[in-house]
Amino acid sequence: YPDAERQRQPQGQEKPREIMEAAKDFAKERYGVSSMIQSQEKPDRVLVRIRDLTVQKADEVVWVRARVHTSRAKGKQCFLVLRQQQFNVQALVAVGDHASKQMVKFAANINKESIVDVEGIVRKVNQKIGSCTQQDVELHVQKIYVISLAEPRLPLQLDDAIRPEVEGEEEGRATVNQDTRLDNRVIDLRTSTSQAVFHLQSGICHLFRETLINKGFVEIQTPKIISAASEGGANVFTVSYFKNNAYLAQSPQLYKQMCICADFEKVFCIGPVFRAEDSNTHRHLTEFVGLDIEMAFNYHYHEVVEEIADTLVQIFKGLQERFQTEIQTVNKQFPCEPFKFLEPTLRLEYCEALAMLREAGIEMGDEEDLSTPNEKLLGRLVKEKYDTDFYILDKYPLAVRPFYTMPDPRNPKQSNSYDMFMRGEEILSGAQRVHDPQLLTERALHHGIVLDLEKIKAYIDSFRFGAPPHAGGGIGLERVTMLFLGLHNVRQTSMFPRDPKRLTP
Amino acid sequence: YPDAERQRQPQGQEKPREIMEAAKDFAKERYGVSSMIQSQEKPDRVLVRIRDLTVQKADEVVWVRARVHTSRAKGKQCFLVLRQQQFNVQALVAVGDHASKQMVKFAANINKESIVDVEGIVRKVNQKIGSCTQQDVELHVQKIYVISLAEPRLPLQLDDAIRPEVEGEEEGRATVNQDTRLDNRVIDLRTSTSQAVFHLQSGICHLFRETLINKGFVEIQTPKIISAASEGGANVFTVSYFKNNAYLAQSPQLYKQMCICADFEKVFCIGPVFRAEDSNTHRHLTEFVGLDIEMAFNYHYHEVVEEIADTLVQIFKGLQERFQTEIQTVNKQFPCEPFKFLEPTLRLEYCEALAMLREAGIEMGDEEDLSTPNEKLLGRLVKEKYDTDFYILDKYPLAVRPFYTMPDPRNPKQSNSYDMFMRGEEILSGAQRVHDPQLLTERALHHGIVLDLEKIKAYIDSFRFGAPPHAGGGIGLERVTMLFLGLHNVRQTSMFPRDPKRLTP
Repeated sequence: YPDAERQRQPQGQEKPREIMEAAKDFAKERYGVSSMIQSQEKPDRVLVRIRDLTVQKADEVVWVRARVHTSRAKGKQCFLVLRQQQFNVQALVAVGDHASKQMVKFAANINKESIVDVEGIVRKVNQKIGSCTQQDVELHVQKIYVISLAEPRLPLQLDDAIRPEVEGEEEGRATVNQDTRLDNRVIDLRTSTSQAVFHLQSGICHLFRETLINKGFVEIQTPKIISAASEGGANVFTVSYFKNNAYLAQSPQLYKQMCICADFEKVFCIGPVFRAEDSNTHRHLTEFVGLDIEMAFNYHYHEVVEEIADTLVQIFKGLQERFQTEIQTVNKQFPCEPFKFLEPTLRLEYCEALAMLREAGIEMGDEEDLSTPNEKLLGRLVKEKYDTDFYILDKYPLAVRPFYTMPDPRNPKQSNSYDMFMRGEEILSGAQRVHDPQLLTERALHHGIVLDLEKIKAYIDSFRFGAPPHAGGGIGLERVTMLFLGLHNVRQTSMFPRDPKRLTP
Repeated sequence: YPDAERQRQPQGQEKPREIMEAAKDFAKERYGVSSMIQSQEKPDRVLVRIRDLTVQKADEVVWVRARVHTSRAKGKQCFLVLRQQQFNVQALVAVGDHASKQMVKFAANINKESIVDVEGIVRKVNQKIGSCTQQDVELHVQKIYVISLAEPRLPLQLDDAIRPEVEGEEEGRATVNQDTRLDNRVIDLRTSTSQAVFHLQSGICHLFRETLINKGFVEIQTPKIISAASEGGANVFTVSYFKNNAYLAQSPQLYKQMCICADFEKVFCIGPVFRAEDSNTHRHLTEFVGLDIEMAFNYHYHEVVEEIADTLVQIFKGLQERFQTEIQTVNKQFPCEPFKFLEPTLRLEYCEALAMLREAGIEMGDEEDLSTPNEKLLGRLVKEKYDTDFYILDKYPLAVRPFYTMPDPRNPKQSNSYDMFMRGEEILSGAQRVHDPQLLTERALHHGIVLDLEKIKAYIDSFRFGAPPHAGGGIGLERVTMLFLGLHNVRQTSMFPRDPKRLTP
């Protein structure tokens, strides 16, 4: 860095006395605020990752770029905690050969969350540093430059944001409420808990695709702007499309089926799904991410159910193998039992579930859908009886499913459809689809989609030129993340959640 | 299948004489139209893939499910071509021990594109069957059942749809125009060319993510419904959002940058991007798929440029290694030179490009953007001089770039921004971003984003609490697919394209 810039102080004019002191400061080249990095230079400097600062690096001189998580001055010393994502290390600036008292003062006054470049010697410590992830070493700072200065007042404190609710309540310590978090999401996402949640969520997407590509699936891209509401007219957002109106797809349903009719055989997609529902619950968003699967089968839709269930099992296994650190990090703030599942996945029929609920005292009709409380109760009953947090509920009443659901030929009140549940909440809805255009038209008319029949003509027509039997399902990414980790609100697992009341940031 | 159903004929009532003949038909159990598959049974039958029908399987009896691509009756024989995706095989139904004349007639009358289950013996042929992908064997049919019957008149013929334009023109044979294709996209997507295009496109997404995950990137999901136009107010679709208006994101730009400010360091996303541009060109869509990258760097944005260019090179290499069949299939219809690229990727500065264009007789100002014809001309000049179809153009004039572009500190008229080109067309636009909130505000005001400054407050505020220097770029998936394969219209590489005039299917 140009020396002149390096000495520029963060705030306002320097006072004469300070200039005098600076003149006497033997370490004045060793600290300061850097000029904005505009790619002026390509210095030949290696920056070491904090997670790699271990006793193997003891006594090495390293450069680290990190955030100042906390700083604490103590006499002629200043202790900093430097943070990178989920990892942090203690750093010490002490008056001595490398640092002047001015330099210690400078370090102590760096605003929290500022980004700094630090040169230091890695030193083994005698007593483990319990408050840091790097417990066996600390960094003895020789140079420190501010790369990006944070404003002095943070809208929320990161330590408050990772405090367990119960600790906050019992010990009267601060926690951060959800709206404050979401209003200042960029800060909230920096916490170890958020970092872990969204690294794990990235893993879910990766495992989903990895598993399906190994199974021979093809990834498709389906349009989100559509000319007709795909799942009935309600709950759909309208878009001004040049001089006309269009809609936002409530799912890729019709398009993934059209891809099956177009011979892609096994398809998946990951993309946004839009629901104009004025629901303000812990598990509804107006925009969420759908993990969708559709697959031609040979003779029975259970071929597809098994593929989907196995895909989810591979995700659960992959998460437990590859993301144990993240799971434990989240558990520190939100304690939760490990997620349990069986192989093969437990499959219950709807009538069995009804019997279990009735035995538990619930009154329900044969063709009645599950309410949210009954879903959760059923989850507890299943967990007690089968010791699994994941199961399939098969053979839903036809009356409660969309028009494209294949009726059960053995029982006209049943259908070849299924939901899948994690910890008692629905995460997937799916079915064998009607692949016969005549039956499809009948079912659409039966559901009262009379006016829209012309609008879904392209969809119905796609079954007129040979269509294989097929089935599929749609998974909600945020729900899977939430329920796998045992969290309680889907807003915790959406980076920038959208609900009827929230459109920002 | 229930026998009664199996004998049901496709159309209307059976005539008495036919019933009489059927009664005398020794093979009557061996063919027919199956009842709709509603998952009544789980037969223990293995279906063999057509691509696996090779001489290794000679003399085996196999079951195959496929489409009837063509059928041709010839005396007591009927030749069928059976198709699965890009693969097809010849099948023979001949009067003899296994087939009656009624059965041959039945087979000959099955409408094209119907889906059938066929049992047959694999037989080695003496002369290669040039019209099929499986050239060394044919299938001697013993049983044939229609699983899904196609309507008799197809809206387009698959063989016409894969005919090279030039052959159509020279030999006066039919080809299919683009609107007919797109109006009947489900049929058009079944052609070998379309199958190859979209299998390769799935490969692009996979290679993109595979490469980035290996590089330590995290996948993020960004909202598509936003409260303010992210890239200036023009060309944005408006959504009715409960009682208010919202917009469709023109890119994940602001959100991926916010993720950088939230410490995710290296992020990518794949998702829909919306542009309300009334452009009816070969390369504009109103909805396309963006492959987006954003990355914090240490000292110079070229660190990011190198990562992005290497990611694209890994995609090109992966496609040429894993998708050679698909490339050749597309080339049959659309002949094209193999895609060429250098390692490391060629990087030219904008002023060098200007010099090349001026030398070729083009008059252009120093701060003028490249027009489409000049872009293409430059592509040809670069190809001649450097023998590459892929290059980076760096250091664009600041005046032609968005407000969040970092100015070049050495030259106020330049910026730290770049485009990348394939076969002379832009596929990526990117830059170092301004990470200082004060400079960002100044740049936004300079660009006239005065009214909207309040609306992008959350974005600007995300730089107030320490922001690392970062850069990134957005890639158009359909363009990469089109240009890699040397196609000429982006509608060929979007499954269900959206433009100002097309919203269906």
